[in-house]
Amino acid sequence: MAFAIGIGPNIRKSAYFDATVRDGVRSFSVYNHMYIPAHFGDPEAEYDRLINGVAMWDVAAQRQVQIAGPDAGKLVQYLTPRDLSKTQIGQGRYVPICDHDGWLINDPVLLKLAEDRYWLSVADCDIHLWAAAIGREKGWDVEVSEPDVSPLAIQGPKAVEVTAALFGDWVRDMKYFGFKECTLEGIPLVLARSGWSKQGGYELYLMDRSQGTTLWDIVKTAGQPWDIGPGAPNDIERLESGLVSYGADIRWQDHRATPYEIGLGALVSLDSHDFIGRDALRAHASKGPARQRVGLVIADNPPLPGHPLPLLQNGVEVGHVAEFAYSKRFGGTIGHALIRSDLAEAAEGLEIIVEDKTYTATLHAIPFV
Amino acid sequence: MAFAIGIGPNIRKSAYFDATVRDGVRSFSVYNHMYIPAHFGDPEAEYDRLINGVAMWDVAAQRQVQIAGPDAGKLVQYLTPRDLSKTQIGQGRYVPICDHDGWLINDPVLLKLAEDRYWLSVADCDIHLWAAAIGREKGWDVEVSEPDVSPLAIQGPKAVEVTAALFGDWVRDMKYFGFKECTLEGIPLVLARSGWSKQGGYELYLMDRSQGTTLWDIVKTAGQPWDIGPGAPNDIERLESGLVSYGADIRWQDHRATPYEIGLGALVSLDSHDFIGRDALRAHASKGPARQRVGLVIADNPPLPGHPLPLLQNGVEVGHVAEFAYSKRFGGTIGHALIRSDLAEAAEGLEIIVEDKTYTATLHAIPFV
Repeated sequence: MAFAIGIGPNIRKSAYFDATVRDGVRSFSVYNHMYIPAHFGDPEAEYDRLINGVAMWDVAAQRQVQIAGPDAGKLVQYLTPRDLSKTQIGQGRYVPICDHDGWLINDPVLLKLAEDRYWLSVADCDIHLWAAAIGREKGWDVEVSEPDVSPLAIQGPKAVEVTAALFGDWVRDMKYFGFKECTLEGIPLVLARSGWSKQGGYELYLMDRSQGTTLWDIVKTAGQPWDIGPGAPNDIERLESGLVSYGADIRWQDHRATPYEIGLGALVSLDSHDFIGRDALRAHASKGPARQRVGLVIADNPPLPGHPLPLLQNGVEVGHVAEFAYSKRFGGTIGHALIRSDLAEAAEGLEIIVEDKTYTATLHAIPFV
Repeated sequence: MAFAIGIGPNIRKSAYFDATVRDGVRSFSVYNHMYIPAHFGDPEAEYDRLINGVAMWDVAAQRQVQIAGPDAGKLVQYLTPRDLSKTQIGQGRYVPICDHDGWLINDPVLLKLAEDRYWLSVADCDIHLWAAAIGREKGWDVEVSEPDVSPLAIQGPKAVEVTAALFGDWVRDMKYFGFKECTLEGIPLVLARSGWSKQGGYELYLMDRSQGTTLWDIVKTAGQPWDIGPGAPNDIERLESGLVSYGADIRWQDHRATPYEIGLGALVSLDSHDFIGRDALRAHASKGPARQRVGLVIADNPPLPGHPLPLLQNGVEVGHVAEFAYSKRFGGTIGHALIRSDLAEAAEGLEIIVEDKTYTATLHAIPFV
C-alpha cells in the first residue's frame, strides 16, 4: 500500500522542512502535529548509514514543552515518578510521565536548563496541555509554553567525528544526556549527547527556526568527509536496540502500560517525592506487573501490518505485538510485545495472525543485537 | 509536491480504514493520532458530490472523549465558557474549550448522552489529557476515556434522502445537532444531524469498531440511488462556509486566539457559571478582541503554500492568513485570516507573499457563498 500525504496548514512544517524537501524526502509521518521525514527513498542505505556511518535527522517534531517560573522544579517533579533531586543544570533525564492511574502518557527526555527552566522533549502527545492543566489547577507560579526549538539529530558511530568537527573535541567528553547551550556560526542552540538510537550521537536543539536550512547545510557540509546523509528515526534499529516507542508500544487507553510493565520500573521512585499516579503505582508495584515487555522472533517474515496485533497462545490472546520488522543484522523478523507476566519467561506456542495466515513467534531477549 | 505517508503502528487506523483502502483512498492526513482520508483521487468530483449530491466520509479520527460519572456534568461545564444549563439529553452543542488564559485549545461538539455521561467530539488535540488532568486535580468523581466510537459522516444536500432510506423518515425531523441512540441492522450507533460542512447531513457514531466495513457498505449500498461516493472533510467548502478549522485557523501558541477573536464570542457566558479561563476572558471582553477573523479574496490564484502565512499591509505584518484555496463556486481564491481589529472593517492594501511573489488580498464577508 502506498498513499500520498495531504500537505495542509493544520499540520506544522519543521524548521528543516524546506531542506529535507530539497534533499529528497520521499515519505513523511506526522508527530506532535508536525510533518516528520520517514525516509528519503532508500531505507536500506539509511539504515546502513545509521549502523555503520552517520546520519542526520529532522526530529523537530520532537517538540519541547518548556516549564518555567519559580515553581517550575516543583511541577516537573510532580509530573514524573523519577526522583530529580540530584539532577544538575546541563543534565538530561529520561522521565516517564504517568496519569493519575499510573498509566504512561509520555516518556520524554527532560533537560534542566536552569533551576527555574526545564524542557520536556516529548513523544507524540500533547503534554503541554497536561502540564498546563496540572500547574494551573495547583495554583503554582509556572508558565508552560512551546519555545522556538527544533532538534536536528546526528546519529551513528561516526556522529562523534562530525560533531567534533563542528564544535571541537570537547564534545567527545560529553556524558550521555549531558547538554550545553552554545552557538554554531552564530546560530543559538543546545548541543546534547542524545538521540533516539543506540548507535551514539548528538542532537542540536536549534533555537531560531529561521536558521533551519542554514543549520541543516552546515551539518551536511561538515559531515561530508564521513559520508553523512539524511535519514529518520529508524524502527528497525529501535526494535533491535529495545528503545521504547510511545505511540507504538504504548498509547493512552489503546495500549496502556505502566512503567513496570514496559521495563522502566527502575526509574520509579515511590518514596522520595509526591507525583501524579503514586498511589496507583504503589498498588501496581505491590501486585507486580500484570504484563511484561518481551522481544519476539517471528518465523517466515510476515508482511508488516502497520498496526499492533494480538499475541496468541493456542488461540487465546495473551498480549499484543506492538511492532515488528525484518532485521538484516539479526537475520530475521523481530518485534516487541507485551505479554502476561506468567508467560514472559518461557512461553511456548506463541503465534500471530497476519492477513489470515498464522506465524509462530518465539521469545527473545532485548536488545536483539 | 507529492510525498508518501508512512503507515506504521504509532498512528491508529480508523474502523473504516480497510473499507476506504478497498474503495480507492489515495491520500491520508493524520488527525488525533489516526489516519484520516484526504481524498480518493478526484478532488473535484468529491467537492461536487458534497455541494450537489451526497458524500460519505470516514471521520473516525474525530475521536470521542467520554466524560462519565457523578461529577461529569460539573466537569463538562467547567471545561467550556458556554452555558450548558439548558442542554438536554439528546442535544449536541458546539462548545469552545479554552485554557486558563482564555486561548482556545479545541472546539468540539458536545453530546449529552445522559445526566452523567457526555462525549466531546474533538478536533485535533489531546483533550482527553486536559479533561483528565482537570477532573483528577479537582478531585471530582469522573472518568475520562475514549470509547469505541467511530463517526461516519453522510454530507451533502441529498444526505437526508440516504439517511431516511437507512433509518426512516423520522430523521427528516431531527434538529441540527440533535442525536439519538439506535441500531442499524443490529449495529449499535448514535445518529446525529451534524457534520463538518454547511451542506447538511448526518453523522453515524458507530459504537462497535469491528463493524466498520459492514456499516460502510450498508451506507454505500443505500446511497447508490443518489450516487453516493467517498470523500473527506473539504477545505474549500469549509472556507466558503466559514467553518472553523482548529489546527489551521487556531493552534495553541502558534496561532492562538480567543473565542472573541475567532467569532465565537456569542457562545461565551461570563456570568452564568465558573469555567476555565473565565477571568482571562473577562479581561479580553472588556478590552475588546485584539484581532478578528475575516474573509479574504486573493488575486491571481497563488499556489497553495500548505501552511499559514503572514498577512501584510504596506509590508507590515497585521495578522496571518490561516488557509486559502480556489473556490469554483465563488470564482476566485478565498481564505480566512486573523487581522488586527482596527483593520477588520475596511483595510486596504493587504498582501501576502507566496514563493517570493506578492499577491493582493481584499476583505470579504464570511460566508463567501
